[in-house]
Amino acid sequence: MKELIEKGKKARQAARFLAQAPASAKNAVLNEAAGSLVRSAGIILSANEKDMKNAREGGLKGAIMDRLLLTQERIASMAEGLRQITLLEDPVGEVLSMKKRPNGLVIGQKRVPMGVIGIIYESRPNVTADVFGLCLKTGNAAILRGGKEAFQSNFAITKIIQNVLEENGFPPECLQLVEDTSRESAVALMKLDEYLDLLIPRGGAGLIRTVVENSHVPVIETGVGNCHIFVDESADLDRAVAITVNAKTQRPGVCNAVESLLVHERVAEKFLPLAGKELLKRGVEIRGDKKTCEIIPGAVPATEEDWATEFLDLILAVKTVSSMDEAIGHIQTYGSGHSEAILTENYSNAQAFLDRVDAAAVYVNASTRFTDGFEFGFGAEIGISTQKLHARGPMGLKELTSTKYIIYGNGQTRE
Amino acid sequence: MKELIEKGKKARQAARFLAQAPASAKNAVLNEAAGSLVRSAGIILSANEKDMKNAREGGLKGAIMDRLLLTQERIASMAEGLRQITLLEDPVGEVLSMKKRPNGLVIGQKRVPMGVIGIIYESRPNVTADVFGLCLKTGNAAILRGGKEAFQSNFAITKIIQNVLEENGFPPECLQLVEDTSRESAVALMKLDEYLDLLIPRGGAGLIRTVVENSHVPVIETGVGNCHIFVDESADLDRAVAITVNAKTQRPGVCNAVESLLVHERVAEKFLPLAGKELLKRGVEIRGDKKTCEIIPGAVPATEEDWATEFLDLILAVKTVSSMDEAIGHIQTYGSGHSEAILTENYSNAQAFLDRVDAAAVYVNASTRFTDGFEFGFGAEIGISTQKLHARGPMGLKELTSTKYIIYGNGQTRE
Repeated sequence: MKELIEKGKKARQAARFLAQAPASAKNAVLNEAAGSLVRSAGIILSANEKDMKNAREGGLKGAIMDRLLLTQERIASMAEGLRQITLLEDPVGEVLSMKKRPNGLVIGQKRVPMGVIGIIYESRPNVTADVFGLCLKTGNAAILRGGKEAFQSNFAITKIIQNVLEENGFPPECLQLVEDTSRESAVALMKLDEYLDLLIPRGGAGLIRTVVENSHVPVIETGVGNCHIFVDESADLDRAVAITVNAKTQRPGVCNAVESLLVHERVAEKFLPLAGKELLKRGVEIRGDKKTCEIIPGAVPATEEDWATEFLDLILAVKTVSSMDEAIGHIQTYGSGHSEAILTENYSNAQAFLDRVDAAAVYVNASTRFTDGFEFGFGAEIGISTQKLHARGPMGLKELTSTKYIIYGNGQTRE
Repeated sequence: MKELIEKGKKARQAARFLAQAPASAKNAVLNEAAGSLVRSAGIILSANEKDMKNAREGGLKGAIMDRLLLTQERIASMAEGLRQITLLEDPVGEVLSMKKRPNGLVIGQKRVPMGVIGIIYESRPNVTADVFGLCLKTGNAAILRGGKEAFQSNFAITKIIQNVLEENGFPPECLQLVEDTSRESAVALMKLDEYLDLLIPRGGAGLIRTVVENSHVPVIETGVGNCHIFVDESADLDRAVAITVNAKTQRPGVCNAVESLLVHERVAEKFLPLAGKELLKRGVEIRGDKKTCEIIPGAVPATEEDWATEFLDLILAVKTVSSMDEAIGHIQTYGSGHSEAILTENYSNAQAFLDRVDAAAVYVNASTRFTDGFEFGFGAEIGISTQKLHARGPMGLKELTSTKYIIYGNGQTRE
């Protein structure tokens, strides 16, 4: 696709510029972009109105309309995001190790930008500014392919940022928005491995699956979280209720919310009525196994499918288990490798659960809701990786970098 | 494909066992496998004879026959490789960082095995033992899909190792060989993302390209090296001759051998006759630009294609350039991001070349031939990554691991 090849070439040039740009210059651009977004809020809001109008006319409604909507407050929050990124340390250039070899070669490993990063996303226009901030700070050029329903908003934000780039002597192609929003342009981006070093899909499970199956560019898979909490027989039950309620209800629509609760049968009769009462009070639908339904009158029977479902809603699957082994087996079968927690006062069980459960984040005695770049102290987040290659769990600035070996010699040849 | 799904399931089980196996038990298996390979050399050699006979009858010859051939010595060397891996530190379990957050959560990042690693390779049966050693040491189960010409050899080696695994109480499925060697089985392995965490192709450019384009499993791209040496105007010319000759002729068939030489025009008249003489004496064909052909009488004119070619042979493309900028531009256009060197006595040029050239390994005043896990001091190598995701440059044991976050709480919930 011609548009993408041209954008790819320009992004590669911009990436070469960015790789050499000092942190101070990158931070200046980020601060000015923040200011410019706020000053140009009128332009952005009127573009967003067009998107909203088209969406309404196209019959969209509910959560997608909320994701699409921009307000003064949301624009201020995008700007604040850019300003906060200026406060983080620039990871580029850090030398991770440097050693002298017996032959006198001094071999160092240095952190460098990835190069050109592609992002395919859906209806949230704030992603445009967020991704720009993270990529610019880490010296990467970005090619964004947003959803067609947000095109006017994305285009307005991109233009404002490109002007700031130019005014600061940066190539405007540090940030490029794909103007063709057809399905074909998304597929073409997945085949652009000559110019892209990394592709990150941000969106629902369908989008992510399509990218994983079609991309020639290395991908980081993000997002799907079928998270579990296991209440062990030694758990502090009051805490367990609070953690369960928090993990399910504090924000049910996100990937680190708990979807299944596993309860040791020795504490089920005591714990489930307490937890059930608090959950039902907050409107949570409980889908339980036989024993759970006997203990919690308001529960409905769970189906096999429920154990495998990321509800992203006020629904919780609940199962009683006879041992920690059974709980771990259940998590191995149905978990998506995102966030898993054990609630226990037993030292050996805590350690064994941490060792044996294979997930991006494994917790003892805390809510799964903490799996997040900000909560982990990274100061930023581009997504939460559920794959094992390159990055696993919340990804901050470092995860947008690669490394290269730099070797200082004085005439060495190989024998 | 049924065979692969079954092998995938068993590999996942074996990986769970391996993730918990202590280093001492893994090392014991590696030592015993080494001994068993040597003791069973007769079985391996007779299987290899069958492969060699089939290959001869199938019309194969030359380098591929040499790659396929096993001897007592080569078997001893496979065994020695396994023993050496026992001497390396087990990377699994290392805690890379652990920090207490303001809310009291203690968040650590721990090194864990990848899980199940697939390898697609061609005709070298020694890869079977090498990959087994690296994967077992790092707690990964391996599914190998070797070339059909080496099947009997691979099968014999796998059986011997599987017996050792079983005798030591390990699941034999820690190592599995795909018995279907059709093209379909390779493609099916690329789609086995439900069971595979990583797929590494080891072989020629065609194989690697097929895997990159078809895999649903995360891939590490290895190998292609169109490497350059730039002789700057301030280079020590005697050293430059020695380094150029070494990088081209010490082992021309490998990815870190130099393929193109860029010479600053201010030293061309002095350097090229010296280098040309040594190269021609060693049978190197020199394909030069106009100026090079004028200076070296034995040189032939280079075509555009030559600048982009990984010869893997005693052929060297030679171009004169008017500046370091031109040299870097040439490398940006034609390089494959593997290994690039500048030969210079100028401090600023050395630093600028290290900064600006985007490759896995960038050298000052040394031969490109050092890009290699053993030369870098890793004690082992599974390949040389030319991508930027996860691993770049020589990959040792650490590059076969992932991480997970382990979080110690005491009742934290998110506000």
